Amino acid sequence: MLVRDRSHPHRSRPEQEELVNGPVTPTAAASVAERPVPLDAVRFAPEGMLGAWQHRNAEATLPHCIARLEAGGALPNMRRVTGEHAGPFVGFHFSDSDIYKVLEAVGWEAGRSDITPLLPWVDETVDLLQRAQRADGYLNSHFQVDAPDRIFADLRWGHELYCLGHLLQAGVAWARTVGRTDILEMGLRFAALVDERFGPSCEAGVCGHPEIETALVEVHRVTGDERWLRLAEVFVDRRGHRSVGEDRFGYHYFQDHTPVREVTDATGHAVRQLYLAAGVADVAAETGERALLEADERIWRSAFGEKQYITGGLGSRHRDEAFGDPFELPPDRAYAETCAAIAGFQFSWRMLLATGDGRYADEMERALINAIAESTSLDGTCFFYSSPLQLRTHRDGVHEQAPSERAAWYECACCPPNLARLLSSLHGYAATVADGRLRLQLLTDCTVDLGATGVGSGLLHVRTGYPWDGDVVLRFDEPFTGRLEVRRPAWATEVAVDGVPATDAGYLVLDGSTSPLSEARISFGMPVVVRAPHPRIDAARGTVAITRGPAVYCLEQADLPGGVVLEDVAVDPAAVWSVDAAPIEASGWGAPALRGWARVRTPDAGETYAPWHPSVPGGDEIDVRLIPYALWGNREPGAMRVWLPVR
Amino acid sequence: MLVRDRSHPHRSRPEQEELVNGPVTPTAAASVAERPVPLDAVRFAPEGMLGAWQHRNAEATLPHCIARLEAGGALPNMRRVTGEHAGPFVGFHFSDSDIYKVLEAVGWEAGRSDITPLLPWVDETVDLLQRAQRADGYLNSHFQVDAPDRIFADLRWGHELYCLGHLLQAGVAWARTVGRTDILEMGLRFAALVDERFGPSCEAGVCGHPEIETALVEVHRVTGDERWLRLAEVFVDRRGHRSVGEDRFGYHYFQDHTPVREVTDATGHAVRQLYLAAGVADVAAETGERALLEADERIWRSAFGEKQYITGGLGSRHRDEAFGDPFELPPDRAYAETCAAIAGFQFSWRMLLATGDGRYADEMERALINAIAESTSLDGTCFFYSSPLQLRTHRDGVHEQAPSERAAWYECACCPPNLARLLSSLHGYAATVADGRLRLQLLTDCTVDLGATGVGSGLLHVRTGYPWDGDVVLRFDEPFTGRLEVRRPAWATEVAVDGVPATDAGYLVLDGSTSPLSEARISFGMPVVVRAPHPRIDAARGTVAITRGPAVYCLEQADLPGGVVLEDVAVDPAAVWSVDAAPIEASGWGAPALRGWARVRTPDAGETYAPWHPSVPGGDEIDVRLIPYALWGNREPGAMRVWLPVR
Repeated sequence: MLVRDRSHPHRSRPEQEELVNGPVTPTAAASVAERPVPLDAVRFAPEGMLGAWQHRNAEATLPHCIARLEAGGALPNMRRVTGEHAGPFVGFHFSDSDIYKVLEAVGWEAGRSDITPLLPWVDETVDLLQRAQRADGYLNSHFQVDAPDRIFADLRWGHELYCLGHLLQAGVAWARTVGRTDILEMGLRFAALVDERFGPSCEAGVCGHPEIETALVEVHRVTGDERWLRLAEVFVDRRGHRSVGEDRFGYHYFQDHTPVREVTDATGHAVRQLYLAAGVADVAAETGERALLEADERIWRSAFGEKQYITGGLGSRHRDEAFGDPFELPPDRAYAETCAAIAGFQFSWRMLLATGDGRYADEMERALINAIAESTSLDGTCFFYSSPLQLRTHRDGVHEQAPSERAAWYECACCPPNLARLLSSLHGYAATVADGRLRLQLLTDCTVDLGATGVGSGLLHVRTGYPWDGDVVLRFDEPFTGRLEVRRPAWATEVAVDGVPATDAGYLVLDGSTSPLSEARISFGMPVVVRAPHPRIDAARGTVAITRGPAVYCLEQADLPGGVVLEDVAVDPAAVWSVDAAPIEASGWGAPALRGWARVRTPDAGETYAPWHPSVPGGDEIDVRLIPYALWGNREPGAMRVWLPVR
Repeated sequence: MLVRDRSHPHRSRPEQEELVNGPVTPTAAASVAERPVPLDAVRFAPEGMLGAWQHRNAEATLPHCIARLEAGGALPNMRRVTGEHAGPFVGFHFSDSDIYKVLEAVGWEAGRSDITPLLPWVDETVDLLQRAQRADGYLNSHFQVDAPDRIFADLRWGHELYCLGHLLQAGVAWARTVGRTDILEMGLRFAALVDERFGPSCEAGVCGHPEIETALVEVHRVTGDERWLRLAEVFVDRRGHRSVGEDRFGYHYFQDHTPVREVTDATGHAVRQLYLAAGVADVAAETGERALLEADERIWRSAFGEKQYITGGLGSRHRDEAFGDPFELPPDRAYAETCAAIAGFQFSWRMLLATGDGRYADEMERALINAIAESTSLDGTCFFYSSPLQLRTHRDGVHEQAPSERAAWYECACCPPNLARLLSSLHGYAATVADGRLRLQLLTDCTVDLGATGVGSGLLHVRTGYPWDGDVVLRFDEPFTGRLEVRRPAWATEVAVDGVPATDAGYLVLDGSTSPLSEARISFGMPVVVRAPHPRIDAARGTVAITRGPAVYCLEQADLPGGVVLEDVAVDPAAVWSVDAAPIEASGWGAPALRGWARVRTPDAGETYAPWHPSVPGGDEIDVRLIPYALWGNREPGAMRVWLPVR
């Protein structure tokens, strides 16, 4: 094992237990095609994009989140329960979940790096929560103080089970990484109360915001107790009977419009939809029920085939933070909440485990490299809540639909802690095993402990500048006699393995069984590809997006000559783009810019709706520079667009 | 005079008073370029579109509104004040304004037709209001019963002055048409209280929703009392100092971001912006202040040049019912509230009076024939609140962003009564006079009492199928020796007067001073014109809209062959469209359909974001039929689009 510092005082798991599991660990009996490798089997190198990002998360984002739990009110809210704070409740009534998500993030980080500096905060916070928790297990800083008579009275909007789900996920993280179980025990006491009130023996009850379903299945996996799987199952079964939703927001919003096994598409509030779909996949994995998996496949095809932005953003409507109709994907008014991209990543991961189909990992990569990466500022402490693909010429901050700058925190602070917990466990999503072979799902500069994966022994060093460079060198420090498969993304039309063009689709196979491997070189051809939107995407018609590998590029006002307004720039879709030799320094990710030319339309002083004319308008040619979408908004505020008009 | 039944018991104006004024009647001293003709100088013929529509308004919409004031809660809310109703308050706390707008509509109707059947309702309602009004003049059904301690305590959201504005406008209508003054007197008692509390001698106070400004200027015009003009002026002056707005919705929302004289563009909540702009124009007309008129010109250019849909819809964002950025005009997610189109019409009318520039009337016509006409069902009793230019394939009512069917009423019922009051006074917007000559601003089949206009004597009969037919016959029943001008819309590139091509821009001049006129024939060339969106309108790029005269056409799913999905239909912008000989019967407006052909794209089963390819996709050719946008949504619910893709 690369990391195995489990000398934590709360350690309670037997010493002979060797595996450190990450998020989503199906039981041995689960119906899955792939299984995750242990969390500590993969270590990202700080030279690679994912390693650098994960490092920034630990060094900057996590401490920032901890500070903001204090300043933003979540921890003071909890101290109102114990009488240590006398002020009013601050923020949204589900602010407890922010505490739990940050605790979860630190828990995963504990399985990866030395978190000693953060431990006093963890211990204090756990102590506070323990003191706040009622004798019957109930724990919620809003209801306990401000509405004790409304406890469990408003499941539609109360978010009590949603918060419990995040508490349980924090408990699972700490139990799995360092064997610390006090957080999980707290969660189990609360969960037992919920099971008594709303369990299978009860008639009704389901949370207005799905989240607890996936958490309960994970608790089942950690504890081995079927009770939690049954509770997750009953929460899935109760949806779609119009018991928790209501008319004004619509039953779709609450995922209460149609029984889960009958749903046909992704709809309603995007994060609710995707969290529920993830929980459904978890239940399906543990129960083996095909109907649930098939429902998830329909939801996935709808979400990722017809309702996903090219950046991986999901949920196009600001109104109700919802999925739009198929192909309703406006770049400027995209809601594309960061939490939805993360939830989509988590959903796709479960579908990947269930089916072994690499297209799920392709979409994880799309979201990660674009929408999720974009959400955070270069210093790791400011965040977009919503990720538009276009910002018009900046006139007036108040007047913009979408924010043009990342904020340090939000009143509804769901996204930053969600990023923190994803990043601190990200290496857990990099590889899977099945049938005695190993698959690399996310490529980045990293080291894999083959022994820990159960496929071979020794270390595998992956050296690559991916996703910004297509060359990947795989070095085994012991001759490798097993089978290694490397995901071939759908965009990679030209791939060579050791100089030989590869014909494998889905995964590239490196088989050491006949001739042991010591090194292999994979080369993904990474030309700049000009992409057109599906003709049903009305809002991007007549435009193209410039991509390279999995990365989507954009044009920022900051890269245009003075006096040129981004709204007047048009590109020739047949133009050739070149890749800058030197990467953009600011990111530390090795990401290069692209260079090409565009035409500046002469602003038309005439009619807004003039008679159509076949001629293509002229205009001056200018050189333009494109940067990865992940890096936009890190200079002065200004216009940006991913989809560039062709005339 | 064509109509002069003023034998109402409440009649109090002197018998020698001959003029019946309509909405917006500048004083003799006002700084205006044009003046409206008396309300009863123009009578629409039931054969013309505007006459048929006005007739439907009187016969169907008005009684429907009256019934809905009862069923929807507005009148029961008022009866809570007098103790005649014991139930809870229903709907929004500004529901009084619905009562007042319907009263205003009946008031204008009283100047046009026999409203005897509605008089008992009017008398009962006025009696109720009189009994509900407090001794100090205050009148508001919400605050008086549910929050008496909050009266005038929340001007931001309270809508108390907004409601008073509508009460005053109802009073003005009744005073002007039949000389009934009891409603106006009620309003004046309330206005006096407001003047004491928030008048020029007070330090602060302005309503969160503009409306009272224009009403106060009208009251000044009716009563001759400068006090009301001063009060309107102070409400204009106090805006923009961030005293009534707040951060969450933004100061723009409340029109409180910038002092009126300094504003540069149309922004914030669309109806608030446009009502305020109308009030500013009224104040400018009566005070002669250029700075106010110039501010309005900037707002108008922004609203109508950069933020108006081709249909005349205004305010593109659902969020905050607001204006978007320049050229942010998505067809599918258009908010385009009916009240905003009406408010835009009222604003343009005031700008037309101020300047005499026909382009303002062009935009009134665009809104009237398209967005405003579209808002109401063929039977006059169902209404769109929001007017999108595209509805995607109808899958599921709940799932649509925009409603696909008109509703009989709304919880926020501002739009239907607004339509009713506009339609019952619509003939008041048809003509203006200045410098001894008459201008026809809105063309429809009608009769003009020349003597009442002060330009000539006898009657002018206008016989035309306009806007569906370009031929206009003007017949004078006495030789006309004056000067008559007929607006030449900007779209009318080919016009003939008595067979001679006209070169006049703006207005066509018919001068009877040298040779008296008995008849003239104007022929507006009305080819089908394929229009392209301004290149900065991202959401309509690569599409065209089909127009004829001032009318915008659309394609409805109902007119496509079975199996063809509207989303897959593309048109050739160079294709020729023909005009159906027979009009669409259902409308009673003489509106014809257009016929042409389109291509059905083969739905692509491939990637959502595939590499760009220069070839134009093929597809089967089909015949298609387009109907006026004003008439969509009157068959089975289904997809619709104004902007048709060209590939």
